[in-house]
Amino acid sequence: MPADSALPPAPDIVRSAYGTLVVTDLAEARHFWVDLVGFVVTEEDSSALYLRGYDELTHHNLIVRAGPVAAAGALGFRVRSDSDLARAEAYYAALGCRTQRLPAATVRGLGEVVRVEDPLGFLVEFFASAAHPERLQQRYDLRRGAEVARLDHFNISVPDVPKAQAYYAGLGFGLSETIEDEQTVYAAWMYRKQTVHDVAFTGGGGPRLHHLGFFAHEAHSVLRMCDILGSLSLESHIERGPGRHGVSNAFYVYLRDPDGHRMEVYTSDYYTGDPDHPVLRWSVHDPRRRDFWANPVVPSWYSDASVVLDLDEAVRPVTELAQTAEVTVGADGFTAPSPAPPE
Amino acid sequence: MPADSALPPAPDIVRSAYGTLVVTDLAEARHFWVDLVGFVVTEEDSSALYLRGYDELTHHNLIVRAGPVAAAGALGFRVRSDSDLARAEAYYAALGCRTQRLPAATVRGLGEVVRVEDPLGFLVEFFASAAHPERLQQRYDLRRGAEVARLDHFNISVPDVPKAQAYYAGLGFGLSETIEDEQTVYAAWMYRKQTVHDVAFTGGGGPRLHHLGFFAHEAHSVLRMCDILGSLSLESHIERGPGRHGVSNAFYVYLRDPDGHRMEVYTSDYYTGDPDHPVLRWSVHDPRRRDFWANPVVPSWYSDASVVLDLDEAVRPVTELAQTAEVTVGADGFTAPSPAPPE
Amino acid sequence: MPADSALPPAPDIVRSAYGTLVVTDLAEARHFWVDLVGFVVTEEDSSALYLRGYDELTHHNLIVRAGPVAAAGALGFRVRSDSDLARAEAYYAALGCRTQRLPAATVRGLGEVVRVEDPLGFLVEFFASAAHPERLQQRYDLRRGAEVARLDHFNISVPDVPKAQAYYAGLGFGLSETIEDEQTVYAAWMYRKQTVHDVAFTGGGGPRLHHLGFFAHEAHSVLRMCDILGSLSLESHIERGPGRHGVSNAFYVYLRDPDGHRMEVYTSDYYTGDPDHPVLRWSVHDPRRRDFWANPVVPSWYSDASVVLDLDEAVRPVTELAQTAEVTVGADGFTAPSPAPPE
Amino acid sequence: MPADSALPPAPDIVRSAYGTLVVTDLAEARHFWVDLVGFVVTEEDSSALYLRGYDELTHHNLIVRAGPVAAAGALGFRVRSDSDLARAEAYYAALGCRTQRLPAATVRGLGEVVRVEDPLGFLVEFFASAAHPERLQQRYDLRRGAEVARLDHFNISVPDVPKAQAYYAGLGFGLSETIEDEQTVYAAWMYRKQTVHDVAFTGGGGPRLHHLGFFAHEAHSVLRMCDILGSLSLESHIERGPGRHGVSNAFYVYLRDPDGHRMEVYTSDYYTGDPDHPVLRWSVHDPRRRDFWANPVVPSWYSDASVVLDLDEAVRPVTELAQTAEVTVGADGFTAPSPAPPE
Repeated sequence: MPADSALPPAPDIVRSAYGTLVVTDLAEARHFWVDLVGFVVTEEDSSALYLRGYDELTHHNLIVRAGPVAAAGALGFRVRSDSDLARAEAYYAALGCRTQRLPAATVRGLGEVVRVEDPLGFLVEFFASAAHPERLQQRYDLRRGAEVARLDHFNISVPDVPKAQAYYAGLGFGLSETIEDEQTVYAAWMYRKQTVHDVAFTGGGGPRLHHLGFFAHEAHSVLRMCDILGSLSLESHIERGPGRHGVSNAFYVYLRDPDGHRMEVYTSDYYTGDPDHPVLRWSVHDPRRRDFWANPVVPSWYSDASVVLDLDEAVRPVTELAQTAEVTVGADGFTAPSPAPPE
Repeated sequence: MPADSALPPAPDIVRSAYGTLVVTDLAEARHFWVDLVGFVVTEEDSSALYLRGYDELTHHNLIVRAGPVAAAGALGFRVRSDSDLARAEAYYAALGCRTQRLPAATVRGLGEVVRVEDPLGFLVEFFASAAHPERLQQRYDLRRGAEVARLDHFNISVPDVPKAQAYYAGLGFGLSETIEDEQTVYAAWMYRKQTVHDVAFTGGGGPRLHHLGFFAHEAHSVLRMCDILGSLSLESHIERGPGRHGVSNAFYVYLRDPDGHRMEVYTSDYYTGDPDHPVLRWSVHDPRRRDFWANPVVPSWYSDASVVLDLDEAVRPVTELAQTAEVTVGADGFTAPSPAPPE
Repeated sequence: MPADSALPPAPDIVRSAYGTLVVTDLAEARHFWVDLVGFVVTEEDSSALYLRGYDELTHHNLIVRAGPVAAAGALGFRVRSDSDLARAEAYYAALGCRTQRLPAATVRGLGEVVRVEDPLGFLVEFFASAAHPERLQQRYDLRRGAEVARLDHFNISVPDVPKAQAYYAGLGFGLSETIEDEQTVYAAWMYRKQTVHDVAFTGGGGPRLHHLGFFAHEAHSVLRMCDILGSLSLESHIERGPGRHGVSNAFYVYLRDPDGHRMEVYTSDYYTGDPDHPVLRWSVHDPRRRDFWANPVVPSWYSDASVVLDLDEAVRPVTELAQTAEVTVGADGFTAPSPAPPE
Repeated sequence: MPADSALPPAPDIVRSAYGTLVVTDLAEARHFWVDLVGFVVTEEDSSALYLRGYDELTHHNLIVRAGPVAAAGALGFRVRSDSDLARAEAYYAALGCRTQRLPAATVRGLGEVVRVEDPLGFLVEFFASAAHPERLQQRYDLRRGAEVARLDHFNISVPDVPKAQAYYAGLGFGLSETIEDEQTVYAAWMYRKQTVHDVAFTGGGGPRLHHLGFFAHEAHSVLRMCDILGSLSLESHIERGPGRHGVSNAFYVYLRDPDGHRMEVYTSDYYTGDPDHPVLRWSVHDPRRRDFWANPVVPSWYSDASVVLDLDEAVRPVTELAQTAEVTVGADGFTAPSPAPPE
């Protein structure tokens, strides 16, 4: 879909800005996200938390709200100006997608929001203005947990990776890296801001949210996060890692919150802002693509993801993986991984 | 000069891309920049080195070339497209500045270049295309020294900071931070790419290059750089730091090369890509502005800088500081610092 | 065997000092240990390498020598004085063990050596004096790879952990940590120098050398080691980790050399020099004992170890695990782990 | 005084264990030591705090108690056994020093204590047994501030360094490093535990306590301590550093508490347990001896130190530096440093 001439102009997206997680026990979720992981509470009430990292200069990077079923709510993208909100409405209408315009402050801390069911089945929110809370970048005295700085990216599970890639290319996203073979693209990383990604696609049943990725400045923050969880015998929240990704070169760890929502603490990254930024294409046969140090990917990392809500707050049905592949070199090659051995 | 309607459109600058240093002994300079600091040699001959950091995907971040007098040559900015080269010619012509168009490969590794004597007296080069050498981001086996990733910024010494700020605002640069009081702006940081700066201004005699700032991923790379210099009894190359800047929040060290050119190893930084990115204004009275840990700034850091060349390779005369200030709270307040005590 | 009155006095052991590995291809081994891991070559010839870490002030921490079969040679312990060599001869004679006295310089860089087949079946060498090569602690310019500082410990695989513990208690070793349940000691850590261990016992077929542990100062050196191996597509040398041990609290990674010999890069550790140093006893049921972050232990880590040589250079036969245990909570509980799933 | 045959046997000292600081405002001191630096409170009442680092397995590393005048109280050394207490009494009696025997629990958390006015004029306490509080080594969830692990050393200011060195040699301390020239020893580092030092001597007016050194595991903890102080505009507590010492190779920072008592956060260090451990002798002319990176030593670091109390709680008079030196190469050469320039 890059620059489809039949479509009106796409909104000018600045960056991925926030995720929304629906949790079944808000107090437990607060303990995880605030006390353990160390997010800053910008605002909260009995039904929701508005959280941000220490570098974030706008209202939130994460909304955690109570609901009957654990699910992912809207993915929030910042657009350049108010006129991009109207552009978003027209663009998605042309794509045949339902949209809603929400008055300012309907989503706390934000101006008007255009909420959309996107063609991949995800709920997406666009906003052009946000409140600026107190700047905490240099409040080292307050830092806790993983010392998360800001949202880095959304990773979504989709049954058809090339379709997802084409849709985001139509929104002006650049391509930084892929996992592929001659027939198939198994995964792709795309960006608007000048990092490796704002969004990435993992082949699998979808629409589901695979994880929210949050940036931390140094590797020792990843290690500290793990140490804190081990200290409290909560190490079962650590799903995968720490490790080095081949893709993106980031040092990472994946955690699962009490409802099973997955988050990544993500460090390192690199600049992608040049107009001819070269794509890095990983062979699906290179064992370093997912883990540069040859640690196996745990099966749950491929199988589990959060279901997503639609505009009516209903859980979207999940379509199984639609792609086929000749190669069967692990879950990226779309074979079901074997169960883990008992330790 | 923001959006001066009398001027033709400014070129669309993507980022600061490379600096040029003229050195009096190329072999000594190579030892410093390559063997000690650890830059990658993309290309070299008997008169010049083309160096890059490990993350850089284009030909160079630094040109070191032999010459009769130690001086700074051109500061290189990448522009978005070839049409921006013509835009640059027209823009600077309208400003009354001399320009040159250099054929492709005149500057090695680059396409056509427009070279300009800018209104502040600096030699600036614009280019739209560059060769892509081997990707070394994940060649940890090759990393040495400070493990510099890429160029981060130019810091220039100018006699009139507000004039420099207005000129760069006219080129579309955003403002991230300042040091100021009610009467005076003592220093300012401005960006095109989504970091704290591509260019910064230090009040002082100018035009002179204060330093080239290079990004490293983690603080331990800064410490390692210092340790290597100490190991070899070359610690006198360390001019200031390591320390934490108040401005930009970066962890830094400043080194001087064998000709006295200053470079900074710069870590941390933060995202500035939002359209309404809020300016952080430091009071000149806050002792943390220059060093967050209260370490005094060594006098040479305020007094010394590299003279710059013009289009004819002549050294530009230096104009002394033109601003006056009521306050005298250190060199940022434009008082001459006292000499250092003997240890 | 603590203070068995029927025995003559034990030699006063200062610390674990070096390991000996017999390799089938010395050039390949040199590439691994020197070029990749970064050991310093104190001395070498066509049949052996004498290697040390950057902090080591004596001749070697590791001897790598060519031989027909991959095996572990002698474990070297430093004793306090020359008189401890005679004490060692008498002590082991009383234990019914074969001993040899080697003239000075037979083992390069050492004075006289008493070589022993110890009661556990391991070849052990005692020495009281060693050559002091150039001090490289502050030669950061030379550091490479994991920047190993010194030998930290031997980990040996033995069929009867309590027997090994009693033998080393008889040599005056203190006990720092154990993995146990009410019936069984599954593993134990013992020390002479003031660290968590000079020797540790892993229950399994023995006598075999489980691994040599080398100390590095900071966690980022462990990560760097892994990154270097990944860079060169040699990540299969990484067997387990990086991770945090519950036992000892160290941050670690385990590597396998080209012959399959295992080494650990080991950071953190703690002081154990107080006379009443309290033992830390881990329940075999605490999943954090082996990995504080709940990463599973790969099966090879429990099953594989290096066979050891006797005084005649013959490989010692391996006795299978002699202990039984009610619990079956992983390999520490002496059940065979299941095979790993395909990725 | 090494092995003076006219003296009874010296007590067998295991290690430096705790310092005592008398402060004029206990609440302010608590804020500094506990809230900012992050020490663990083992016990406290209205007049004193008993603090320990996260690795410490005994009752305290630091006693902070209220008093009329800021001063250093006793330096605590652990001895091997109860019999060493009687040995200490006899030894110091033979030296003509006043001693006191304190019943168990007089110093909280300790068994019987022998308190001594030592020949250098310092108050010293010896103890052989101590309470073991909860083990917090792996409670990463509790760590704050500099994450101090344990006491590392005492640094004392003495008018006659060779006299201090001889006195501690008589107590069985080994010598690890010195600063010297052909005529003079300007400073020396001595140890009982297997680290670079338990005690060090800085030439200057004495008896005064120069600083208490506390060990932290990694350099980023030093940086974090500074960042926290800067965050709260308390950066004036940072007196010197961060930096790398030539002597000991440690990465350090020096802080001053609200009463001006100096503490060091000290990382790295190396093993000194071999019987023939080689002394590292730094020339007073090597600028790297005090700072490996050529940062100047601030004058207060040479001039200021805490006065010490005697057995009657009176402040000991200070004797000015008794040594003379030909060379005048900075304060180690015993010249008064010049005042610092205004920033």
